[in-house]
Amino acid sequence: MSTIKAYGAKSSDADLKEMTIERRDVTDRDVKIEISYCGVCHSDIHTVRNDWGGSKYPVVPGHEIIGRVIEVGSDVSNFKKGELVGVGCMVDSCRECSACKDDLEQFCEEGMVGTYNGKDKHLGGHTFGGYSETIVVDKYYVLKVPENLDEKAVAPLLCAGITTYSPLKHWNVKKGDKVGVIGLGGLGHMGIKIAAAMGAEVVMITTSPSKADDAKRLGASSVLISKNEDDMKKHKGSFDFLLNTVPVKHDINPYIQLLKRDSTMCMVGAIEPLEPMHGGGLIMGRKRVAGSLIGGIKETQEMLDFCGEHNIVSDVEMIDMDTINTAYERVTNSDVKYRFVIDMQSLKN
Amino acid sequence: MSTIKAYGAKSSDADLKEMTIERRDVTDRDVKIEISYCGVCHSDIHTVRNDWGGSKYPVVPGHEIIGRVIEVGSDVSNFKKGELVGVGCMVDSCRECSACKDDLEQFCEEGMVGTYNGKDKHLGGHTFGGYSETIVVDKYYVLKVPENLDEKAVAPLLCAGITTYSPLKHWNVKKGDKVGVIGLGGLGHMGIKIAAAMGAEVVMITTSPSKADDAKRLGASSVLISKNEDDMKKHKGSFDFLLNTVPVKHDINPYIQLLKRDSTMCMVGAIEPLEPMHGGGLIMGRKRVAGSLIGGIKETQEMLDFCGEHNIVSDVEMIDMDTINTAYERVTNSDVKYRFVIDMQSLKN
Repeated sequence: MSTIKAYGAKSSDADLKEMTIERRDVTDRDVKIEISYCGVCHSDIHTVRNDWGGSKYPVVPGHEIIGRVIEVGSDVSNFKKGELVGVGCMVDSCRECSACKDDLEQFCEEGMVGTYNGKDKHLGGHTFGGYSETIVVDKYYVLKVPENLDEKAVAPLLCAGITTYSPLKHWNVKKGDKVGVIGLGGLGHMGIKIAAAMGAEVVMITTSPSKADDAKRLGASSVLISKNEDDMKKHKGSFDFLLNTVPVKHDINPYIQLLKRDSTMCMVGAIEPLEPMHGGGLIMGRKRVAGSLIGGIKETQEMLDFCGEHNIVSDVEMIDMDTINTAYERVTNSDVKYRFVIDMQSLKN
Repeated sequence: MSTIKAYGAKSSDADLKEMTIERRDVTDRDVKIEISYCGVCHSDIHTVRNDWGGSKYPVVPGHEIIGRVIEVGSDVSNFKKGELVGVGCMVDSCRECSACKDDLEQFCEEGMVGTYNGKDKHLGGHTFGGYSETIVVDKYYVLKVPENLDEKAVAPLLCAGITTYSPLKHWNVKKGDKVGVIGLGGLGHMGIKIAAAMGAEVVMITTSPSKADDAKRLGASSVLISKNEDDMKKHKGSFDFLLNTVPVKHDINPYIQLLKRDSTMCMVGAIEPLEPMHGGGLIMGRKRVAGSLIGGIKETQEMLDFCGEHNIVSDVEMIDMDTINTAYERVTNSDVKYRFVIDMQSLKN
């Protein structure tokens, strides 16, 4: 074991502060990573604040991790010291259930092990995330990061990137499809970039006219203001797929009306009860509302390779570790374009 | 034109009474049918009472029509006088839009023409349904009824049958699948019979333990009482498909929990806002909630042929035309097993 510096919260109402945590020694299957950058995901904040219940303290958040390999176990042949790698939302799963065998470890029937606040099989207790100097991860859950990408801006791909890539891929978005991305935040801005790179005609759907210019810069071909009923009518029944990234309770009925017959709106943001859905909206046109959760390890690697090929990274605002509490306030107020990334060098100094 | 006897309502608060209506003369493409039986669908009652708005009076309901051909137009070669036929929920559509070309006339982009309360292209005004002596229908919307089936009990297949067959087929229910049918009424009892005939292991899901014996008689292999939380937990994540026939506002979240990863619950009953759905329930396991509306003409014929092959009809209670108002009260109180069918001979006498 080694003792390292990290940043975490000791209770749901405490600020994040510097602390020390233990990391296991590298086992045969492990890769040890010196963390260079870590993205700030809204889930980090929900966990710190125990919004979903069940948080274990201290919480050391961070599951958008980028770094370089500094040590590998004797049974690790696919990673080498100095290689640029990433770690996303999970660091373990059973690898034997039907979900794991289908490369959907995020739905592991034993429960995936979250990168933080998961059950630590090695040291007992719970796992600590990427707001820390180093991390030791089973080789199966380590991703290769294309060297051509801007390293610090890759971090959010590990969560926001795969969360949007996976449903776009699963529902077979392809060249020429009309795809709506609902909500322009950390997830939405990745959804636009990735759907556009897949060749779709991307329409940004938002309540805020002020977001129009930015949406177009990110790759949207047009913007639909959902409060404008006339414009919503014009687009009725015209979308091949909708990616709904809105992270709070909202009314999905107007969006269902936008779908073509037999098409799907996939929810990736709102992990809470929605406004009442009208059964008739689904019945007329055989429409579907679905959900999707991050993506499996194989697909996350595929997403990183896709982003490497299309030169896609997140739009990020860099922060130092000791400004994290201010950053949390700003994320809560949707005041970030579009993802904070912590320069982990600032923890070491 | 010919003047015939029918039964209808002159306003939303009036009882149904005998009246006369006009039927067009047979055109080249038409089939004239002497109606022998007509099922009583809950939609009939909603339309009579203007529950969904937009009802046009007088309403002559009835879209589960069985009868014999008495006349055909010069351009009709596939139907012959004396043949047993049926007419379901629609009597026309544009036959040119993408939905019609995909054999999904129920989603016709011009709007399908309902068997009653639809826009009558021939006589102007609105269409009149099957609570009448005869009906004249374009050959495209007339179905062939297998002669081996009990004629009077076939009537409800034209709506309740196709409404349940179509989603079971569309979501590829097959031998060995575990299928839940939620709600045991007119739709639910057909769902059980058809899913069982497709080879599925059918679980009847209901709030009422009193329905268990009947569900098994209809073909369910077991019954799950949705109010029993322990039993609901035992079945968590185990269903390949759920057919939700509940016709009123309800909480769908406990049913979503029953679905396997990547599986679908299809709504066919509730044309109204549901209780708030939890986004997380869809996201965990990439689950889907969909809707389905009756079925196209080609698929309705396929359903009738399937029912002929498997000897499936509805469980019906026969009534005379002049007891229809009492029957409506009983349907409203869920007091029918499982479908009223009017012996249209009673209108003629």
